[in-house]
Amino acid sequence: MIERSKALAIIAGAGALPIEVAQSAQREGWDVFIVALRGSARLGDFPGFPSTELRIGQLGGMLDVLQRRGISNVAMVGSLTRPALSDLRPDAGMLRRLPRIVQAFRGGDDHLLRRVIGILEDCGLHIVDIRQIASGLLIPSGTITTRKPDRLQLSDGALGLTLLDTLGQYDVGQAAVVIGGRVVAIEGAEGTDGLLERVAGMRANGRIRDRKGTGILVKAAKPDQDMRIDLPTVGPVTIDGCVRAGLAGIVMREDEVIITERERVIASANANGLFLIGMDGNARR
Amino acid sequence: MIERSKALAIIAGAGALPIEVAQSAQREGWDVFIVALRGSARLGDFPGFPSTELRIGQLGGMLDVLQRRGISNVAMVGSLTRPALSDLRPDAGMLRRLPRIVQAFRGGDDHLLRRVIGILEDCGLHIVDIRQIASGLLIPSGTITTRKPDRLQLSDGALGLTLLDTLGQYDVGQAAVVIGGRVVAIEGAEGTDGLLERVAGMRANGRIRDRKGTGILVKAAKPDQDMRIDLPTVGPVTIDGCVRAGLAGIVMREDEVIITERERVIASANANGLFLIGMDGNARR
Repeated sequence: MIERSKALAIIAGAGALPIEVAQSAQREGWDVFIVALRGSARLGDFPGFPSTELRIGQLGGMLDVLQRRGISNVAMVGSLTRPALSDLRPDAGMLRRLPRIVQAFRGGDDHLLRRVIGILEDCGLHIVDIRQIASGLLIPSGTITTRKPDRLQLSDGALGLTLLDTLGQYDVGQAAVVIGGRVVAIEGAEGTDGLLERVAGMRANGRIRDRKGTGILVKAAKPDQDMRIDLPTVGPVTIDGCVRAGLAGIVMREDEVIITERERVIASANANGLFLIGMDGNARR
Repeated sequence: MIERSKALAIIAGAGALPIEVAQSAQREGWDVFIVALRGSARLGDFPGFPSTELRIGQLGGMLDVLQRRGISNVAMVGSLTRPALSDLRPDAGMLRRLPRIVQAFRGGDDHLLRRVIGILEDCGLHIVDIRQIASGLLIPSGTITTRKPDRLQLSDGALGLTLLDTLGQYDVGQAAVVIGGRVVAIEGAEGTDGLLERVAGMRANGRIRDRKGTGILVKAAKPDQDMRIDLPTVGPVTIDGCVRAGLAGIVMREDEVIITERERVIASANANGLFLIGMDGNARR
């Protein structure tokens, strides 16, 4: 086998994840270059890394930069709200590929990202699995907090993970909230923060009457998710949302969910009496 | 076969549905008596019908009233928010059955209602399928508005109905919103009005960028739903919610969804350019 080049470009969206992945990749021996997507990431967030800033429409420009630097490995990290076509302002390199890009806007998010990956691969790039370059950021098997889940919470977790498996085929739902055997909320386009806000609202208006400190958030990748795309994440904002939603903890499918700002997340969970656990839902059914 | 008594008690919760079902049942020859659940229904809403008002905890009292009147057929109609145990204030007849009632509070809504039905049946009552007494309120097959769905909307409808079938086993989700092949929101404990409000919010904050007048609401009964319990409904508030959410129409599984205040619903849908259609999702896949 040919030894792959260790040159890696991280196409960085918003959030704390891109810098964490960049640092993790660097620790694992990668030679990291940052492409910060304007409006989502800022160059200032990546001190010490060579970098450039591009609009999302500058596919052509990006290919030029990567070619000049001899980079063929690319990882896409961080959040991107689904862009409007009108926001893309395509450059010449992108215009040539526009028909496929327009097609990418039909269907769910996975669909969109898969086509973007296809376009990048057509351009000769190799899309790297984030787990390959940042395995230390994934939730391991077992509890990582002081508090441990009880049997009912583990059973809610197994139910939720099975539900997410079922939903995956519809390209929706990487999270749900389960309280005492009852699925009370499923994530759609609103995202996990919106999901948790809704649960907090339902506690407040009496739609959910179970006492505070019951129920769990479940997070997993979609069953057929392309793991080269950024994985589901849990961060400090997720913990805050769980606290406001009156939940007892988070059940994540092991090795499928990334914890951002891990020390802060664990400290905040411990301070609020939440548990965080990685589990293999299938094995526990 | 023994001719069943035509005496029928309608246990009435909130909304316009109980009086509509009562009138429909009367037209079909039933001798209707109303049990208005205090806090949800009011006696004044049922002019011309013999009636009584009871707290939800007065199971014993209700059994006495029905026995005195020789009524064994019972229908449960209208919405009830999931009551807190502390709201029940059980009477003696209910206290005897309390262990089963407490058990009913574990699990989802179907579970709860099925156990309530079980308790009423143990007490010698026959629970009537609402479709038997109010078939004229159900959505028929086909479009009932001026506007008709296009092919994409029919395809979104089929996708949504299949999704709801899949979700039914989890005792959640009688509604979802699909826009151009993408499931953007699934109903949980918040109910359909909350679901539509969320979609309106996601249009406003840019999470959903498809232009207004795209996307559909899908409604269906759960696949294993006990049809003796009140069915999913669409009413004037649902139409208002769809308008605010910028949707093009509603796809309902035929014969499974009740339209309340039908004339007003159709007039409002027509005035806002929405379509309403009953379809058999399975046949159209």
